[in-house]
Amino acid sequence: MSAMNAFYAQSGGVTAVINATACGVIETARKHKNKIANVYAGRNGIIGALTEDMIDTNKENASAIRALMHTPGGAFGSARYKLKGIDENRAEYERLIEVFKAHNIGYFFYNGGNDSMDTAHKVSQISKKMGFPVTCLGVPKTVDNDLPITDCCPGFGSVAKYVAVSTQEAAMDVASMATTSTKVFVLEVMGRHAGWIAAAGGLAKKDEGDAPHIILFPEIPFVKRDFVKKVRQCVNDYGYCVIVVSEGAAYKNGKFLADQGTRDAFGHAQLGGVASVVAQMVRDNLGYKYHYAIADYLQRSARHIASATDVKQAYAVGEAAVKLAVQGKTAVMPVIKRVSDSPYRWKIESAPLGRIANKEKMVPRRYITKDGYGITAAGRRYLEPLIKGEDYPPYVNGLPKVAKLKKRPVKPKLGTKFVV
Amino acid sequence: MSAMNAFYAQSGGVTAVINATACGVIETARKHKNKIANVYAGRNGIIGALTEDMIDTNKENASAIRALMHTPGGAFGSARYKLKGIDENRAEYERLIEVFKAHNIGYFFYNGGNDSMDTAHKVSQISKKMGFPVTCLGVPKTVDNDLPITDCCPGFGSVAKYVAVSTQEAAMDVASMATTSTKVFVLEVMGRHAGWIAAAGGLAKKDEGDAPHIILFPEIPFVKRDFVKKVRQCVNDYGYCVIVVSEGAAYKNGKFLADQGTRDAFGHAQLGGVASVVAQMVRDNLGYKYHYAIADYLQRSARHIASATDVKQAYAVGEAAVKLAVQGKTAVMPVIKRVSDSPYRWKIESAPLGRIANKEKMVPRRYITKDGYGITAAGRRYLEPLIKGEDYPPYVNGLPKVAKLKKRPVKPKLGTKFVV
Repeated sequence: MSAMNAFYAQSGGVTAVINATACGVIETARKHKNKIANVYAGRNGIIGALTEDMIDTNKENASAIRALMHTPGGAFGSARYKLKGIDENRAEYERLIEVFKAHNIGYFFYNGGNDSMDTAHKVSQISKKMGFPVTCLGVPKTVDNDLPITDCCPGFGSVAKYVAVSTQEAAMDVASMATTSTKVFVLEVMGRHAGWIAAAGGLAKKDEGDAPHIILFPEIPFVKRDFVKKVRQCVNDYGYCVIVVSEGAAYKNGKFLADQGTRDAFGHAQLGGVASVVAQMVRDNLGYKYHYAIADYLQRSARHIASATDVKQAYAVGEAAVKLAVQGKTAVMPVIKRVSDSPYRWKIESAPLGRIANKEKMVPRRYITKDGYGITAAGRRYLEPLIKGEDYPPYVNGLPKVAKLKKRPVKPKLGTKFVV
Repeated sequence: MSAMNAFYAQSGGVTAVINATACGVIETARKHKNKIANVYAGRNGIIGALTEDMIDTNKENASAIRALMHTPGGAFGSARYKLKGIDENRAEYERLIEVFKAHNIGYFFYNGGNDSMDTAHKVSQISKKMGFPVTCLGVPKTVDNDLPITDCCPGFGSVAKYVAVSTQEAAMDVASMATTSTKVFVLEVMGRHAGWIAAAGGLAKKDEGDAPHIILFPEIPFVKRDFVKKVRQCVNDYGYCVIVVSEGAAYKNGKFLADQGTRDAFGHAQLGGVASVVAQMVRDNLGYKYHYAIADYLQRSARHIASATDVKQAYAVGEAAVKLAVQGKTAVMPVIKRVSDSPYRWKIESAPLGRIANKEKMVPRRYITKDGYGITAAGRRYLEPLIKGEDYPPYVNGLPKVAKLKKRPVKPKLGTKFVV
């Protein structure tokens, strides 16, 4: 078989290290020119394939591709765009294959989370049916760390490091001021369903009494009375209370804490995340002075404090995906297999997309303390290696240097317009 | 004159580098044993003097003191506690001098902002009147960068670096997702009166069209109609819009944007900072998908991304304060004098406390673009050197290592209790 082209797309929320995966894919593909002629990257992810708007990565020089290792965001653009089921929108799948065919694309690398694995899986099946079989590889990426089978997900280690470091730092600030000022500090972190990111905040705690004193997991139903009691106890015992709350923290009936049904003076639903809700609860029930921070995108784009372990793994899954593809494997995703906790050792294996797609891995109960507010030794054993090592970007004039890509478009061949 | 002891206190909101100043004070004092026998640090700042609760820094070994260089928070505890005017509360000043006298404290180093300089100034005057003249040195510290005379304030460079780096990173995230997801991102930063921290976000912008597209300064009256128009224009022109907003952004009549007078379902004033207000404005007027982050304490405790320039200056003002004191200077504060912008050169001079106390330095109009939404070349020239250089803390198991102090108390001599 003569060499074919590859299509690479970033999907869903980006991470601090998704471009390290892109680097792994492109650099490895360049070593297999006999199989992969060129890597085309979708501008804005899968949309770039549907609209025939692709970036020719062959036009980028090696140093620009290497600089992706320390560049946050999605270098080629990502998209929140889920292909519907084949029965609901066959046209989309057909269009995809049509574009792949026109550009001699025999490899599809889809870099994303659960949804993307589902799409990659479907494309693999449909392309076969349509007589143009495409080698489809899922490449894991998600700060949520909720993909099954893989021990962890590239992107998570860095957000975990950011949250652990930030919790430690802010807690030291609060502790030093609590006598006369803020007594309760709330940090809101991502994680709508799985509490992995909030759990990472727990790494800041080393000794009894250390912050964070309370972690609110989506996995543990929130009980206001118990929470308020715990906050009071922390302030009494330690002088202050640091809370890390997952955006998905919810009551037993499944209602998010953030969904307060509150209205402003104009009758609009109150904005603001769960942090302000929790802070308000503290104020109304205990009267303590509080502050809260909402990390939002800062946490998942914080390449400046990326975990070296995470950067390595992000590259490794990209590299492995290409190696699997040129070996003829399809409809699989490289997964990270933990070999040992301490010293931390891991290797890359692969798993069928069908076993990964549309499944979410929650924080297991045994990683959460009995009272539901902290992480156990087992949780710490799992999390700690993932934030190890610093991998600093280069700086120019005090700011991180990032990859500058030419992003030359691949010349369209179909000429037909497709509206997404 | 035989050697006397020194009292060092941290005051007000802490910074990522206030402990570097403490290190400068203590290490330099240790080199002048003939003048300064010991440095006592106030536990929780000035309150430690009033309650005779001081920490004996002589009991700390040299490596622990050195580790203060990379330890955020206030190592000895800080306090939001402003001594009243002498006529309103003479007892407090008398108590202070009484404690100083009992512990043979002839030097007072007060590490804080405007208020603290006022206190240090008053203590200098009163101690003289009371026949126990204390050498009083102000030592500058404030993330707000609003002290007069000094070119910049230790603590500011690091928060500026944090905000500039975070703005750049989050903007790359938003830019890569804007086609199908978030179009407007708002980052709320500190600065109730002066917009220096928000201005620092402007450093992330290098070329036309780069983020941040809008900075909201407390110095520039907010005009909603104009703001909404500008956001729409940015989204139309660049596909997305990144906004850095100072917590003190206000309307022409002085009313803070954050003060919306909004009420929740229970009739409580709506919590939540200016970021949610601005985001809501975008939603209500333009309908764009938005996200917002509130950096809060994360910004001022982010020692992991401290500016090397700031760390050096923080140490230098502590060192200089001690040198000035042992030279017999009193009622002065070391100030940073800029010698040149590029290459950036600076030296330490000193200024009388009376000229610094209770004055605020705002961002000058010439640092702000004509439209009020950005920083000028002059502003950039001023700000850029302050975020230069990285000064990473050591890490253990993925988290920054911090100073572990013994904090041995100085044995009280008065035995009388003083309630603050």
